[in-house]
Amino acid sequence: MTRKSNVKEQFVRAAIDLICARSYNTVGVQELCDNVGVTKGSFYHYFRSKRDLTLAAIDEIWASYQRNFLEPVFKSHLPILEKFHRLLESVCDYYDSEKKSTGRMAGCKLGNMSLELSTQDEVIRQKLDFVFKEWITYLNSVLEEAVVSGELPDNTDTRASAQSILAYLEGLALLGKTFNDPSFMREHDWGIPKLILHKSEQADVVS
Amino acid sequence: MTRKSNVKEQFVRAAIDLICARSYNTVGVQELCDNVGVTKGSFYHYFRSKRDLTLAAIDEIWASYQRNFLEPVFKSHLPILEKFHRLLESVCDYYDSEKKSTGRMAGCKLGNMSLELSTQDEVIRQKLDFVFKEWITYLNSVLEEAVVSGELPDNTDTRASAQSILAYLEGLALLGKTFNDPSFMREHDWGIPKLILHKSEQADVVS
Repeated sequence: MTRKSNVKEQFVRAAIDLICARSYNTVGVQELCDNVGVTKGSFYHYFRSKRDLTLAAIDEIWASYQRNFLEPVFKSHLPILEKFHRLLESVCDYYDSEKKSTGRMAGCKLGNMSLELSTQDEVIRQKLDFVFKEWITYLNSVLEEAVVSGELPDNTDTRASAQSILAYLEGLALLGKTFNDPSFMREHDWGIPKLILHKSEQADVVS
Repeated sequence: MTRKSNVKEQFVRAAIDLICARSYNTVGVQELCDNVGVTKGSFYHYFRSKRDLTLAAIDEIWASYQRNFLEPVFKSHLPILEKFHRLLESVCDYYDSEKKSTGRMAGCKLGNMSLELSTQDEVIRQKLDFVFKEWITYLNSVLEEAVVSGELPDNTDTRASAQSILAYLEGLALLGKTFNDPSFMREHDWGIPKLILHKSEQADVVS
């Protein structure tokens, strides 16, 4: 790894840390440069704008979610519901340790950016739209594999289930952040299996 | 209504409109004054700070949610699940008309403020904490009444259900905003009844 790529990565890291600790609009390019210990000229060598850096930060957040949370549980050989249980456990453990070190549960970095920026910056909204749809596709694949292996019934609506589970996780993180209480999320673990929809149920429930 | 109270209310209205169309940190006191058509002196006559105005805006948003969305359905004599269905329908209708007029689904005004501000402003976080807990208490009462009337089983965990339903609604609004698509929320209506927890199930699901 060259020193050059290190500086670029340090900017991405600083953007993630500072934006997630506060918000996008309270972090300026000068503060990012101070954090990395380089000049503004260096910033503009790597990124055209704070938006441009933020797009890179969103990619890195999504990559880190897969690396640190999704892959360790979904590549294991646990039963499907246990996988979801462990996923939520590991997210809550992360929020617990974050709160211990900073006093705050900052919540989902992607959800935070979305609610702050989606009506403000169409380029960032489109990036988040893409990443959240990737996340749904990931969860959909996990559920489809469980259908193929016989762990879930054939009539499981895997896409609707994946979308609902992600909405629920984001909503739990939102309330957990509002209450500054990671345990809120942990206590509502039971909702995830209930949001796996079977097609025969859909007509009953929706009618 | 006096002219004085009108100006104060106009500031609250302007804060709700401008903050929700963009974000808290992109709206300044000068823009609020321009929007209302008065001077900064007038602003500081009514409010000590933008935070102070925002606290009043949060109260008004919560009051308007009760007036426009919760009371019309929950004071009706519909079956309990139909009430929740109508609630989500009316929220989606609102987002549809908002998108038609502005091009954007701005999502839940309280959720937006929470994810932007909860790690940044402890006074605002505490206000949102209080309001979201009031909302949970409201939904809890609705579910408790349905238990008393025999519409839901005696072993319904009304508080856990209320918390989960609210998390789910906030998560659907978050993804709907990210996708700029109110229909996303409407399509996942079916999850609400599934999140009404019965105590006997809890042990099975969580284990």
